[in-house]
Amino acid sequence: MDDTFFEVSAADGAARAGTLHTDHGSANTPVFMAVGTQGTVKGCTPDQLMAAGTQVVLGNTYHLELRPGSETVNKLGGLHRFMGWNGPILTDSGGFQVFSLAENNKVTEDGCEFVSHLDGSRHMLSPERSMKIQNNLGSDIVMQLDDVPALPAPPGREEDTMRRSLRWAVRCKAALPEMSAQGKRQRLFGIVQGGLNPDLRQESARELAKLGLPGYAIGGLSVGETKQQMADILGLVTPLLPANKPRYLMGVGYPEDLIVAVGNGVDMFDCVLPTRSARHALAFTSRGRLRMRNARHAADNSPLDPQCACACCANFSRGYLRHLLMAGEMLGMTLLTLHNLAFYNRLTALMREAISTRRFAAFAAETLPKVSADAGVD
Amino acid sequence: MDDTFFEVSAADGAARAGTLHTDHGSANTPVFMAVGTQGTVKGCTPDQLMAAGTQVVLGNTYHLELRPGSETVNKLGGLHRFMGWNGPILTDSGGFQVFSLAENNKVTEDGCEFVSHLDGSRHMLSPERSMKIQNNLGSDIVMQLDDVPALPAPPGREEDTMRRSLRWAVRCKAALPEMSAQGKRQRLFGIVQGGLNPDLRQESARELAKLGLPGYAIGGLSVGETKQQMADILGLVTPLLPANKPRYLMGVGYPEDLIVAVGNGVDMFDCVLPTRSARHALAFTSRGRLRMRNARHAADNSPLDPQCACACCANFSRGYLRHLLMAGEMLGMTLLTLHNLAFYNRLTALMREAISTRRFAAFAAETLPKVSADAGVD
Repeated sequence: MDDTFFEVSAADGAARAGTLHTDHGSANTPVFMAVGTQGTVKGCTPDQLMAAGTQVVLGNTYHLELRPGSETVNKLGGLHRFMGWNGPILTDSGGFQVFSLAENNKVTEDGCEFVSHLDGSRHMLSPERSMKIQNNLGSDIVMQLDDVPALPAPPGREEDTMRRSLRWAVRCKAALPEMSAQGKRQRLFGIVQGGLNPDLRQESARELAKLGLPGYAIGGLSVGETKQQMADILGLVTPLLPANKPRYLMGVGYPEDLIVAVGNGVDMFDCVLPTRSARHALAFTSRGRLRMRNARHAADNSPLDPQCACACCANFSRGYLRHLLMAGEMLGMTLLTLHNLAFYNRLTALMREAISTRRFAAFAAETLPKVSADAGVD
Repeated sequence: MDDTFFEVSAADGAARAGTLHTDHGSANTPVFMAVGTQGTVKGCTPDQLMAAGTQVVLGNTYHLELRPGSETVNKLGGLHRFMGWNGPILTDSGGFQVFSLAENNKVTEDGCEFVSHLDGSRHMLSPERSMKIQNNLGSDIVMQLDDVPALPAPPGREEDTMRRSLRWAVRCKAALPEMSAQGKRQRLFGIVQGGLNPDLRQESARELAKLGLPGYAIGGLSVGETKQQMADILGLVTPLLPANKPRYLMGVGYPEDLIVAVGNGVDMFDCVLPTRSARHALAFTSRGRLRMRNARHAADNSPLDPQCACACCANFSRGYLRHLLMAGEMLGMTLLTLHNLAFYNRLTALMREAISTRRFAAFAAETLPKVSADAGVD
């Protein structure tokens, strides 16, 4: 088996174009990963996701372990077979959801005890347990368990959680078996923490880099800081991460955030924004955002985005989409989800092309104002 | 333009195999029409419906007139373009929903006044208004407005409503323009009424047949009568309807009902059962019905129906389906809807084949006990 997991094929300033190779196929970077929390990107079949240009799907360890359980997913052939997605899958560690969704969570050096939000059952998530669960799920990319400070963090807490996350990264590396429960390779990513403190962020990046992991993520952003603060942290951190390893900015974000982050050397993204917004009738288009319940769309026979060739834009009018959303029809959410994903996927493909032809700066300058505009009030 | 709307290609006893020709393509009979109440078969794209073998989609006049309005649908190109379904469409008259969903409805010889269940607005549905709405929608098959007795009907009410329905059929025939608002042919079906009274049913069928309509429906069944009573009525009515016109049994039903009705000369069906049941986790299979939330499916890696090649059975396990349904995920409802429709469509295709090879009686005897069994408790 070829062991090259990531290769950079072009660079333009700090921006890079590359390819991730996994035992479930490849993905071109920059890449946006669709969030499939409970083993499904809500309302979409794997065929539809692929047609929308989706390359990687993200699964949530916390949700899948609570229901149906990672042992059950393994019995059903692992997460790929379970959800019928044969492309690359990334699973998170479960930590973020334990801190944000579970009740009565209590963190110690060992891990995090918590109570399920579904049925009140008690659970323990440690670095070793997170690796075991993700090994059962069989994802191609496995995230380390990290310690997440509640915000606003009291003095010292950001430092403590960053250092603990480093210690947990070491334990995750030691605990993850070479192969998944289904016999495929799994690559562990460490997570850079340290909040908005430049010194902590740099220490975190340097120490993680020493572990020689297959990839590195930047966590704890998109939590209320300004866009400039996010860009500053990225500009500090990415130069300290190995150039031949992929860099993943977790939970980010708006189209303009992706452009800025790629300009700062980020390769991978995930966010609920395109999918969750779709379920709330917000469309991302090449001319900005549209609120699709607005009455002005009622008799509009034009497609959502004339520059888009997705299953939604190719077949349906704005008027029909608005009707479905007003009537609470599932299909409205599905079609808008597919469109928003296609929009994000086209944006990353266009960035890749701009990097490969060394005109990323011009592309970014031209595209940023368009995609961040609010076309809903024009 | 060829003017043949319906042709019978084979018969076996009273059962017939035929073809409906419309300006939006053909449909082989016996045919099961998928219910797309609000301009969408809930959770499914037109591509997915076609892949499941769907030939005709039914739209509900009452729902579409209240939201988004038939004028708006016409502005958006008619119902075919609106919902992206290029095959044949049948619309109902709106009458049944006025009687079952609307509030404060008041019937006179002129029509039915009612108050919208959505926003309390006042409306009037007359034979002429129903034709106008269906003309705006542009369906290939248009249903007459009929007067529906509330059940149990007091003495005399069944006779009154049947006679009024005949008078309304004449008014509908006079009111329907030759072409839809989009310039396509529309075929009007009359509706045989008369409850469980053999004399009224026969009078209704004979009088309607004199109108020389393109097709005939049998209404007012599947409302609490026994399966034997339904079969008896069909056996009385269908011989009185012209042999060269299609016969449509409205709102029926279970797979076993379809088999019995085809044996009694029925060609067309619609029912919410396969689609609505799917949203409540009930699967129809070649071995009977399955309740897909049952815990015994949790770790079952086999397909829902080993005899089915639909998008659900080809790609996903019973365990995954159960997980989606337990988690309340839209995709679970979509996949089960597609499977149930594929099952109904395969059943009608198999009946057609059995009729064409003159072994319908044997097919019915063999298939009836299988499809009506409850496999959920085996």
